[in-house]
Amino acid sequence: MSADAAVRAWAYLSRVAEPPRDDLAALVGRVGPVEAAERIRRGAVDADLARHTEARREIDRAVEDLELLARRGGRLVAPDDDEWPALAFAAFDGTAAAAKPDCRPPMVLWALGPVRLDEAAERATAIVGTRAATAYGELVAADLAAGLAERDVAVVSGGAYGIDGAAHRAALAADGITAAVLAGGIDIPYPAGHSALLHRIAAHGLLVTEYPPGVHPARYRFLTRNRLVAALAGATVVVEAGLRSGAANTAAWARALGRPVAAVPGPVTSSSSAGCHALLRGGADLVTRADEVLELAGRIGELAPDPPRPVTPLDGLSDAERLVYEALPGRGVVTVDQIAVASGLAPAQVFGPLALLEVAGLAERRDGSWGMVRGKR
Amino acid sequence: MSADAAVRAWAYLSRVAEPPRDDLAALVGRVGPVEAAERIRRGAVDADLARHTEARREIDRAVEDLELLARRGGRLVAPDDDEWPALAFAAFDGTAAAAKPDCRPPMVLWALGPVRLDEAAERATAIVGTRAATAYGELVAADLAAGLAERDVAVVSGGAYGIDGAAHRAALAADGITAAVLAGGIDIPYPAGHSALLHRIAAHGLLVTEYPPGVHPARYRFLTRNRLVAALAGATVVVEAGLRSGAANTAAWARALGRPVAAVPGPVTSSSSAGCHALLRGGADLVTRADEVLELAGRIGELAPDPPRPVTPLDGLSDAERLVYEALPGRGVVTVDQIAVASGLAPAQVFGPLALLEVAGLAERRDGSWGMVRGKR
Repeated sequence: MSADAAVRAWAYLSRVAEPPRDDLAALVGRVGPVEAAERIRRGAVDADLARHTEARREIDRAVEDLELLARRGGRLVAPDDDEWPALAFAAFDGTAAAAKPDCRPPMVLWALGPVRLDEAAERATAIVGTRAATAYGELVAADLAAGLAERDVAVVSGGAYGIDGAAHRAALAADGITAAVLAGGIDIPYPAGHSALLHRIAAHGLLVTEYPPGVHPARYRFLTRNRLVAALAGATVVVEAGLRSGAANTAAWARALGRPVAAVPGPVTSSSSAGCHALLRGGADLVTRADEVLELAGRIGELAPDPPRPVTPLDGLSDAERLVYEALPGRGVVTVDQIAVASGLAPAQVFGPLALLEVAGLAERRDGSWGMVRGKR
Repeated sequence: MSADAAVRAWAYLSRVAEPPRDDLAALVGRVGPVEAAERIRRGAVDADLARHTEARREIDRAVEDLELLARRGGRLVAPDDDEWPALAFAAFDGTAAAAKPDCRPPMVLWALGPVRLDEAAERATAIVGTRAATAYGELVAADLAAGLAERDVAVVSGGAYGIDGAAHRAALAADGITAAVLAGGIDIPYPAGHSALLHRIAAHGLLVTEYPPGVHPARYRFLTRNRLVAALAGATVVVEAGLRSGAANTAAWARALGRPVAAVPGPVTSSSSAGCHALLRGGADLVTRADEVLELAGRIGELAPDPPRPVTPLDGLSDAERLVYEALPGRGVVTVDQIAVASGLAPAQVFGPLALLEVAGLAERRDGSWGMVRGKR
């Protein structure tokens, strides 16, 4: 089975289900991407998954998509790639899914730009806000982004007009790292007025999306996209937001993921700050400058320069993942059913954790069964 | 012993020690104001109290002060008057004094205006802030004050330029109740540019001060005065403040008194909001409009429209006051020494609580000893 076959399978899988599904991730974890793609194509999967992939299972544009990606100098980042931000995405655990339905990791990511996704996510802050920003909001967004960039913190945002754009621009101007998470294909610059900005981000930073080429942004895709902005950043800062702004949605994802949410205050007479004040009254941290953001972001493990205790690969595992990991034998392999018995979980609950453990390099499939990756314990 | 003699004694005591002293309050509680004044005049008091009253004990301008007060239509409000805000001042307990030295009730208050002090304090909010207010700050202060006045909440402030003045003016304009706590005598309008405003407050609201006529404001008196602004209000709202503003001092008094502190956010680019943002980062509640202030102020017992349990005269007593109260016999009277033994407190620790219990109508002196006020239990 060639590496190309796996990449083509990931590209196919990226389009076949939307939004990402646990059962699909579990299937991929169980049989690998190529076999999973093959089974879906044939409709040889569980009834529920079959129903949710029925509409697209016969669409296979993987070869064309990958050609387009290659022409632009991009790459597909799959869970089994080194560049996959496994630590950041470990926040997609049972707690997150319980807090907010659909708080799931992406199937695979389409990436374009010289910055590695895992490295950007290691030390990143999301700066988000309303498209209807005031001059004050854009000034503060630029100030924060420049301050973070100067402190080697990547600025993650959504590429939109207003606050997002001000943050990306200031990070670029400070020669910092910035990443834009898109709500459509990497070949669809959106908003059109930000084509040049997105081009600069692709040239110096990173454009990333879970949507295959050709997919157009839509309202529900912006909301789904926002979870990736929150997940890739150690903390989310809302600079200006109306009471119904999408930025509040990003803040809600961040909270579900257990990440700090901060907001910048503004005049109480400004409707563009009303969403920030609502967040602050709800417990978000008030920040006024980059140092305060850094202090906040430093609270989460992967961002702290000096973690209080040694970080082990087991840190950040959910309860279920830990149970499954503990159920693996010290040597040799066991079947999924044996893991279910040993962990006390239902077999269906074992697949997701196994997939994540494999992605995290803690478990591996051998001969259709599962074992620990040697030397990790 | 005539009522006039008592009033003259209070006027004398108001000037003889600054700031208020526990031992003087205890002496007054023990022997009454006339005898206490007499003993201080003669120097027949404990060495420490004698030393602290030595400089002024021979100054007796009580008659002139009271004549001046009468000419202006004012009154002296002493702890044994109905108008004394005993409930509000119950916050001056051991906890407050431990949190902040000098967090003591005033000896007596000089008042001018048609509003009763105890009634104003029953439902009041302090609105304070920098003299160097911006147009934004004055607008928000006026907006909050008008909103509170419309909801029958008295607006307490310090009569200063900037935020204070905007709050007083808006409360007056809304036909609401406003009280200005002065840092000097009732006959010394300060700042001079606010003479007309203070005159209007005296005509429609309340001017109040612990300083006798002729005393000029001084920096340390502003700081001491601030504790009365905080104590007379159920909550303190800082609208605009620089990092070293006096408003932060009022907020600190409020915190020592166990009262909610709120702050209004503003642009992070405005140094006049920097003190507010520091307070908010330190745990103050963020408020943007009068309803939110009301919600906050409603949290403290005496402001809640529907207290969750019946309020008894014993509510709000400090531990020491409660111990002393419990040491009083069901009928008959006991000496201070007997109370000390029964309560486990040193005799010197009994005087303060006794004075407060007397003021609160819970204890009374009979034949030189102490008993419960009948029918209160």
